[in-house]
Amino acid sequence: MSKNKIKIQVEPIGIRFFLGKPTNCLKAIQDAGIEIKSVCRGKGTCGKCRILFMNGKQKEPNEQELKVLSDDEISHGVRLACQHEFNEDTTVYIPASSLSEEQKLQVVGQEREVKVDSIIKKYYIKLERATLKDVKADFNRIKDSLKSLHNITVNKIDFKVLGEMPQIIRDNSWEITVSVRNEEIISVEGKDTTTRNFGIAIDLGTTKIAVLLVDLLTGKTVDKKGVMNPQISFGEDVMSRIDFASENKANLNWIQKVVVDSINSVVEDLCSANGLKTDEILEMTLVGNTAMHHLFLGFPVKQLGLSPFPALTSESINLKAREIGINIASGGYIYLMPVVAGFIGSDHISMILATSLYNMEGNCIGIDIGTNTEIALISNGKMFSVSTASGPAFEGAHIRYGMRAAPGAIERVVIDPKTCVPSIQTIDDKEPVGICGSGILDAVAELLKAEIIDKRGKFILKNGCICKDKLGNLQYVLIPDFHKKRLAEKQDCGANSIKNSSGELSEAEIKDIKEALYLCDELISINQKDIVEIQLAKGAMRTGIEILLENANISFADIDKIIIAGAFGSYIDPKNVINIGMFPNVSLNKISQVGNAASIGAKMALISKSQRKISEDIGKSDNYLELTIFPSFSDHFASSVSFPSPEEII
Amino acid sequence: MSKNKIKIQVEPIGIRFFLGKPTNCLKAIQDAGIEIKSVCRGKGTCGKCRILFMNGKQKEPNEQELKVLSDDEISHGVRLACQHEFNEDTTVYIPASSLSEEQKLQVVGQEREVKVDSIIKKYYIKLERATLKDVKADFNRIKDSLKSLHNITVNKIDFKVLGEMPQIIRDNSWEITVSVRNEEIISVEGKDTTTRNFGIAIDLGTTKIAVLLVDLLTGKTVDKKGVMNPQISFGEDVMSRIDFASENKANLNWIQKVVVDSINSVVEDLCSANGLKTDEILEMTLVGNTAMHHLFLGFPVKQLGLSPFPALTSESINLKAREIGINIASGGYIYLMPVVAGFIGSDHISMILATSLYNMEGNCIGIDIGTNTEIALISNGKMFSVSTASGPAFEGAHIRYGMRAAPGAIERVVIDPKTCVPSIQTIDDKEPVGICGSGILDAVAELLKAEIIDKRGKFILKNGCICKDKLGNLQYVLIPDFHKKRLAEKQDCGANSIKNSSGELSEAEIKDIKEALYLCDELISINQKDIVEIQLAKGAMRTGIEILLENANISFADIDKIIIAGAFGSYIDPKNVINIGMFPNVSLNKISQVGNAASIGAKMALISKSQRKISEDIGKSDNYLELTIFPSFSDHFASSVSFPSPEEII
Repeated sequence: MSKNKIKIQVEPIGIRFFLGKPTNCLKAIQDAGIEIKSVCRGKGTCGKCRILFMNGKQKEPNEQELKVLSDDEISHGVRLACQHEFNEDTTVYIPASSLSEEQKLQVVGQEREVKVDSIIKKYYIKLERATLKDVKADFNRIKDSLKSLHNITVNKIDFKVLGEMPQIIRDNSWEITVSVRNEEIISVEGKDTTTRNFGIAIDLGTTKIAVLLVDLLTGKTVDKKGVMNPQISFGEDVMSRIDFASENKANLNWIQKVVVDSINSVVEDLCSANGLKTDEILEMTLVGNTAMHHLFLGFPVKQLGLSPFPALTSESINLKAREIGINIASGGYIYLMPVVAGFIGSDHISMILATSLYNMEGNCIGIDIGTNTEIALISNGKMFSVSTASGPAFEGAHIRYGMRAAPGAIERVVIDPKTCVPSIQTIDDKEPVGICGSGILDAVAELLKAEIIDKRGKFILKNGCICKDKLGNLQYVLIPDFHKKRLAEKQDCGANSIKNSSGELSEAEIKDIKEALYLCDELISINQKDIVEIQLAKGAMRTGIEILLENANISFADIDKIIIAGAFGSYIDPKNVINIGMFPNVSLNKISQVGNAASIGAKMALISKSQRKISEDIGKSDNYLELTIFPSFSDHFASSVSFPSPEEII
Repeated sequence: MSKNKIKIQVEPIGIRFFLGKPTNCLKAIQDAGIEIKSVCRGKGTCGKCRILFMNGKQKEPNEQELKVLSDDEISHGVRLACQHEFNEDTTVYIPASSLSEEQKLQVVGQEREVKVDSIIKKYYIKLERATLKDVKADFNRIKDSLKSLHNITVNKIDFKVLGEMPQIIRDNSWEITVSVRNEEIISVEGKDTTTRNFGIAIDLGTTKIAVLLVDLLTGKTVDKKGVMNPQISFGEDVMSRIDFASENKANLNWIQKVVVDSINSVVEDLCSANGLKTDEILEMTLVGNTAMHHLFLGFPVKQLGLSPFPALTSESINLKAREIGINIASGGYIYLMPVVAGFIGSDHISMILATSLYNMEGNCIGIDIGTNTEIALISNGKMFSVSTASGPAFEGAHIRYGMRAAPGAIERVVIDPKTCVPSIQTIDDKEPVGICGSGILDAVAELLKAEIIDKRGKFILKNGCICKDKLGNLQYVLIPDFHKKRLAEKQDCGANSIKNSSGELSEAEIKDIKEALYLCDELISINQKDIVEIQLAKGAMRTGIEILLENANISFADIDKIIIAGAFGSYIDPKNVINIGMFPNVSLNKISQVGNAASIGAKMALISKSQRKISEDIGKSDNYLELTIFPSFSDHFASSVSFPSPEEII
């Protein structure tokens, strides 16, 4: 990176760009192709271009900002992009509300047909009016009517609903609809609203939040929306959020608040887009990894960061939404499926539920690829799960030009093995601005296939297709024009050195390259360090699979099915997953990609009491395996970081 | 009252005084004999003399007050007495925290022996530490240990406690004590605390709050404290508070907040006086009339003010204390006994429980005298209850020199029937400053007995013992010296008119009196209007009794027992109660005074699950009678306001 350039990192999109001179933040962000909102065109009056300065000295708010922003926002570093200049290396966080372009977030996976049997039932009642001769209390009147009109017994009414009820009864001529959950009244509405019964299912991921608005009468998904998890501003991975939240209570409260606010805002958007009020949402289900689950509830997570990483509870939780500030019906509950362990959360159970893995015959693997990758193996009717610290490489983090799946991200890469020229595809066919997980996976597999890297992951000097950046690091540039130009000019980079299978360079070779190679900076590329990141990530996953197989005393050949769940998992090319050795070499038709299964499981538990019960049974029957206590762990890991040999590539 | 005097009314003590000229508030209050706190002697620095200006123009806070008082206090009219002047008729409210002298509040009545069987059980557990080979979640570890060590099954842990638990476990070497309520863990403490198990029982009266700190292991009352209900500043009687709270949501929130704050502060005082932390209070029970019950819970009360006055619910309530801001153990509950109707609250059920009225043989009456007087009759195993609007006369309200039972209040009156000179006794033998309920009752009974008033309540001109105030109203002065002086000077007031049984004055008589009587102002006295107030109050109660008897088809003679409950009821002279006709003329040995039975019932429900169950059964079996729908109601009332004839006086 040039010394005189200002480095700007934009979160949570994960885009990095450089400025040659101090530039107005709004202009710089727009110039980088990020569609940040701005109505007043930089006057500072519309307040749309709110951003958060994440590091460095806090910018003093100016007079305009004091007018437009709340005290709370100001004290937390929120500023208007149009009112400040980037004049030093800066990381900014752009909240979803300031972005006009939705990011590419896959919300839902393959749905399964589930018999609708929601925990919420609605009953319309026309009450007898109270008179001096019949002064029965309001709740007792409702209770008796429910019994006589619908043969329904309730023994409880939510405390807040009890307080709201008398006015609703009287404003609606004693005609009401009550919503009953188990034997508790959790909502009272005026008139007959029995045809409207809605819930929300959420998959709270470390990176993304998927929110489904569901009709509890039909079981249909009415609408859905995905947003980034705003906690990213406190750390990309689970561990850094655990560290942040464990520092003090204020941090814990804040990290909880941002995710609760974000969910409230998505729920509000979904409701208003579909003609609903948020208090018509009668139930919410939420799944997530154990850290997300705990942070959402405002639970301390310090112990999740310390061996042996125990969860607070592995029971399911029924919680009044208002207890944590979630705005749905005042008496509404949030249902949280059980978690299995500190690093196997309810999203894993939800995936097992949604994919029916729990009752599959034979030996089946379910895997949800993420910063932590959880893998379940059902074998002979017994279920075991592991969690592997695969790292955020596939989310685009720790990869020099990595970014998340946003417009402009390279998502597909094919390399011509003869010319070594890549073909690329970007999201929304925008000008490439970085490379996202599926693109990185493709690139590595194609580099292997084209023998540009060897099985140890080292660059092989071939066709002059690799070059150095200004710091001297070897890299493979992902911009096809770069390679084409080079070929057209027949520049061979001095590295007609055919193959150097060791991947290590002699002094002479280095000199050659130095002199001959393009000194290319700021071109999107994959470098040696990026490849190591991918090796570590796929090695961790492969190790998890190996130990699950070892524990069940079966081998690759016995595997009947591999289910790849998760948004990322649905974008990747299964062939390349095998080619980089992340999975054992199984027949491709054994692999299925089911998309975001966690959100589907959350939805199933929302619309069906029996599915909810099954998720709790999964929680009880799934056996957690702690990888590090297996004596074979290090051996497995050491051998898993290598790539397959060229002859194994399919 | 003289035109040029400034009238100052001090709440909640109920003292009124007059100032000849504008006077510093602190000085004036102290001069009136009220022991308001002041450490800095009027400099405005100690902040002890906080008062609330209730009517008239709000005083602007000065600089000193802006320093010492919170924004919230200032916006709600709280000021420092030392920083302002009384310069117009004013009502001020002095919060208990600003008073150095405790008011005379009877907290507890006669306790009954009850087998201790608290709903809260504590268990000490030494947990196995989590290891990589045993990563069970914390709650599941506790659950399993409770089962294996104590054979106790829990299925739930309070959400907040769950969040606090991991740190407590680790700070205490995995040795903890859990408190279990039904099958829920509501508290986790470090080490073995099984010998400490405390609860709070509260009787929330319209005027007074009685708070008991109870040992849940022994059932003993450890300490107790009574304070005024601060809601008095929003109206003395239930109806004016209902009106205030129904105006808008802010009023409702505020009227709830003051009582919650007051209870929190008393609980804190009791705890710190007894070496406890408030989070060691594991359970709270609370009883009160239906309006107090609803307002405490923040429930709307508009419907309680409108016929047919239905309650929100007549079920018992188990509520997390934190839901309404009560500071006890974070997972602790408040248990509220059922209410019977809009004007028969849980204090009534509590009284029936505490007095065992519910299982008495024969025909027994239980009565709790207050602003609303609830009366229960058990007859032939059936229970009926009524509520009568007896008004606040016995609380000292609507009585010219009335005040509550605070130091200096005349609480006993005996009148010499020959000389008509009264003997008086004041609370704490202080200089008399007013007359409280028991004094008023005595005075009226003695006036009747001495034939100074007739059975219609009219003054009889006799011995010159009645005189006029400056406005021309007839009054009987309660200061013995006044009468003695008059007798010593043989002044006959021109009214040697012996007896005038009609009580009405002829023109000539009025002239006589006008000329001859002392024109006595500002001497504590009982006037004609005061007597009417007492007639209405006792008439209301008597009507309730009459209708209960009529409904049960029995007569006075059939009554086996009358139990008088309530703090006020324990101070009164039962003979005088009969003499003014409040009760039918029954043998005095059928009457028992049990003191504040409501708080005792609250305590019984606190220490015993079976007593709690009984209170719920009482709630179900007690039949509410609406007085006004009885055709005989008006006739009963009309005849009940008269006093007994002289020959009936005992």
